[in-house]
Amino acid sequence: MTAKPTLEFWYEFASTYSYLAAMRIGALAEEAGVALLWRPFLLGPIFVQQGWNTSPFNLYPAKGRHMWRDMERETEALGLPLRRPAPFPQNSLFAARIALLGQENWGPAFTRALFRAEFGEGRSIAEPEVMRAALEEAGQDADAVFAQAQAEEAKAGLRAQNEAAVARGIFGAPSFVAADGELFWGNDRLERALAWAQSLAGRSSASIR
Amino acid sequence: MTAKPTLEFWYEFASTYSYLAAMRIGALAEEAGVALLWRPFLLGPIFVQQGWNTSPFNLYPAKGRHMWRDMERETEALGLPLRRPAPFPQNSLFAARIALLGQENWGPAFTRALFRAEFGEGRSIAEPEVMRAALEEAGQDADAVFAQAQAEEAKAGLRAQNEAAVARGIFGAPSFVAADGELFWGNDRLERALAWAQSLAGRSSASIR
Repeated sequence: MTAKPTLEFWYEFASTYSYLAAMRIGALAEEAGVALLWRPFLLGPIFVQQGWNTSPFNLYPAKGRHMWRDMERETEALGLPLRRPAPFPQNSLFAARIALLGQENWGPAFTRALFRAEFGEGRSIAEPEVMRAALEEAGQDADAVFAQAQAEEAKAGLRAQNEAAVARGIFGAPSFVAADGELFWGNDRLERALAWAQSLAGRSSASIR
Repeated sequence: MTAKPTLEFWYEFASTYSYLAAMRIGALAEEAGVALLWRPFLLGPIFVQQGWNTSPFNLYPAKGRHMWRDMERETEALGLPLRRPAPFPQNSLFAARIALLGQENWGPAFTRALFRAEFGEGRSIAEPEVMRAALEEAGQDADAVFAQAQAEEAKAGLRAQNEAAVARGIFGAPSFVAADGELFWGNDRLERALAWAQSLAGRSSASIR
């Protein structure tokens, strides 16, 4: 029996289109027989290297206006709630450290809960109580996780995660990376990324499923 | 009988994703019963206003690398040829003036021929012989059109066209604008834009078709 194909899902909590991808990737990956590797990271440091001090959706107002209208249309089509958080983008540093701590187990549940609070309810994800509620929804002891996320190891872990993102050629979020390094950028490429991951596993595994 | 729904298709000859949209929009619009309004324009002046002196795909190398790989995948899926022109982006000023002259009749045929030369064959669309071949493929007298495109009226026409693009909130290409002003950016939004245009025509016309 061939190993199940995998796909890395790189997301940023402050990113609107990461919200869309996070809410729909689970069901699509299951349908495709692809195992997901959830990979939270920070776009901020990457944007700074590109000479940006905030989201391009703020730097370029026409682009930003379209993005919010597009989000209205896309969330409506997906049956997802949408409410803009203020400020935008949100400070996602601590949330990313938390999600990284749980990325191999409870990270996805925490991530979905936090994205829903942020873009579905317009809440500030930098606020401890919002992160606490998301952690509890994911079945975690929030105080214990907060303590772990404040440790030097968690800070170093997120820096290493970001270096790994840059090494993969990632420049925006969400991004998807297949086992052979093939990179797909944007929620609109999720289906293609899953199909690519499947194709790497070969036809024999497809016929076994 | 209700009027046929319309959709404006705003494109830039130097834009890779405009190539994809131009090659597939005709069949999709016909299938959807939507009348297309082809609208060539220039991204250059809009990019300059955003502080860019060239394509963002050149300014941000990681973004550019992904774009070209994405174009390989997307053209393969569409059965379209792909060959990078040098330099990128191409100077599209004269080509846009020409396409604007014919936008109500032979513009689409000229546009498809020129896009195929540029991104299918890697040719330089600023070269007169390349524009000449595309004009002839569109059944036009190239010398006559060249003369017209050099006139002050053609220059003023393209400036007005660009002002119209900005007035619609356009910041990138391809873009699609429905009769009610609804703006969709990107080749990936073509299907949604056509569905939106259809929805404006109302259910009565849909049932008549």
